[in-house]
Amino acid sequence: MQSEIRKELLDAFSNAGDDFLSGQHLAELIGCSRTAVWKHIEELRKEGFELDAVRNKGYRIIKTPEKITADEIRLGLSTMFMGRNIHYEDTVESTQKIAHHLASEDAPEGTIIIAEEQLSGRGRMARKWHSPKYTGIWMSMILRPNIPLNHAPQLTLLAAVAIVQACEEMTDLILDIKWPNDILISGKKITGILTELQAEADQIHSIIMGIGINVNQKKDDFPSELREIATSLFIEKGETVSRAELIKSILKHFENLYTLYLEQGFLPIKLLWEGYATSIGKNIKARTLTKTIEGRALGITNDGVLKLEDQTGFIHHIYSADIEI
Amino acid sequence: MQSEIRKELLDAFSNAGDDFLSGQHLAELIGCSRTAVWKHIEELRKEGFELDAVRNKGYRIIKTPEKITADEIRLGLSTMFMGRNIHYEDTVESTQKIAHHLASEDAPEGTIIIAEEQLSGRGRMARKWHSPKYTGIWMSMILRPNIPLNHAPQLTLLAAVAIVQACEEMTDLILDIKWPNDILISGKKITGILTELQAEADQIHSIIMGIGINVNQKKDDFPSELREIATSLFIEKGETVSRAELIKSILKHFENLYTLYLEQGFLPIKLLWEGYATSIGKNIKARTLTKTIEGRALGITNDGVLKLEDQTGFIHHIYSADIEI
Repeated sequence: MQSEIRKELLDAFSNAGDDFLSGQHLAELIGCSRTAVWKHIEELRKEGFELDAVRNKGYRIIKTPEKITADEIRLGLSTMFMGRNIHYEDTVESTQKIAHHLASEDAPEGTIIIAEEQLSGRGRMARKWHSPKYTGIWMSMILRPNIPLNHAPQLTLLAAVAIVQACEEMTDLILDIKWPNDILISGKKITGILTELQAEADQIHSIIMGIGINVNQKKDDFPSELREIATSLFIEKGETVSRAELIKSILKHFENLYTLYLEQGFLPIKLLWEGYATSIGKNIKARTLTKTIEGRALGITNDGVLKLEDQTGFIHHIYSADIEI
Repeated sequence: MQSEIRKELLDAFSNAGDDFLSGQHLAELIGCSRTAVWKHIEELRKEGFELDAVRNKGYRIIKTPEKITADEIRLGLSTMFMGRNIHYEDTVESTQKIAHHLASEDAPEGTIIIAEEQLSGRGRMARKWHSPKYTGIWMSMILRPNIPLNHAPQLTLLAAVAIVQACEEMTDLILDIKWPNDILISGKKITGILTELQAEADQIHSIIMGIGINVNQKKDDFPSELREIATSLFIEKGETVSRAELIKSILKHFENLYTLYLEQGFLPIKLLWEGYATSIGKNIKARTLTKTIEGRALGITNDGVLKLEDQTGFIHHIYSADIEI
């Protein structure tokens, strides 16, 4: 019903071209109240539409949201396999869910799933991830590396390096990696990575890597509870970033690092990662499922496990935790 | 079309009760040739039906196949959680596929999926598993242990011990475990175990454990290419084994071992496993994805990894291979 009204509204604006449409006229056309029209127009603004609103004249659309299209990603994509198979969706429950399905149906390595909006995007440990329409990159990638199961966390770290490299290349901003799967700017979260897998006990079938990046959100686009802890490239840089270009850059950097990793193992990735991880050398708190450990982050092992030295000098190996710096 | 004829045939026998039905009569009733009738009757025999065939009188059914019902499994089941949630199906693609779906929809730990027949049952590395109707146990179990990813292979070994204990208890036969996931009688395969998982990089969401056991197959029920390498409890013991009772016994033994494992770790399971594994101490060939190693099987590590000492005295750690004894 709501989407039906939205569609009629957009049709009306399409037909009107550069002419203004009054709230009263729109209300009569669609058969709803002027308040309802106003609410839908606010929704359009949130989706990335820009509208002129002039007293006694009404509204007109002056800019449509920057939608990503699969063709836009393909244009100029310089990878061998990453993103060579693109599934693009407007609205999905979660790109991970689609990716899991495609992976079990033998989708090739490098397949990516992109959506403009996720209704129930998830982060690590089934935490909700806010992924509103037309503002961010909500993407899943299917990988099929021949590596032991317990090396899977290394790919989270590898992806983090690729994303930092791509974002820094496109924006000149400085990004920090927070172990294991967050990327921050000035302490606020800009990216989350979720690495899932389908496997036999001794063999990986596929890695399903979910990436959420806050790209063009304005401060008001974040729900109030996220405003102090999340940010976007737009907020930090002050200008819109092309999501399609950023995706292409991530795919390229990822493919380069992934190829290096499959040839030479985790060591070169580890060195790059440590260069971007600000928490290394600092005192941090690590909250695991069973306890909280305070100490100095020494670095990561060759397996991607965090080394944390407590006050007694004991070095804890942290496989999974939330980190507070 | 085939299943339509089968249904008409069964209806005809149902209506006839203890009376005989001639091949000619059946052919006219169903509208097919006498040869077709004979073929369908042979198929029924393969499915576990027993038929009287008397010259000049015709056929009658004297025993229907032993179907498993969920209620039959529930009756007398003495577990706390294993098998407390039962999904029973007649014919499925594979019980693993259903289990994966149920696991992602939050099915509780201990949920089991049982089918009378699998059309595309799979073993390790996507190998086909022959699972004809009414003869074996084709079962998947959903587990949610809080263990590291690389401990998942331990559960394959744990399941093997539970199955051996249950089979020996019910049949007095002697079973051997062949690393990693086969159970043999006199060198022929009676059981395969497939351990799959859904996971984040650092956390298991669910283990989906598939178990295929040849229970009541007669020698002719196996395709010719399997007759020399596979056997059933019926063939070895010479009498029918109740599948429902065997399932209950497996669930009970599994739950006991699994509870022990979660409390005390893999060591007690390892000791039991080594007691049932005939290959330990023998010379074997291990075919991995990349090479074949010959040597003496020394045992398994505390992580469930096979230790193989070659002629030079070097001890190989085998994570995944096919073993030839």
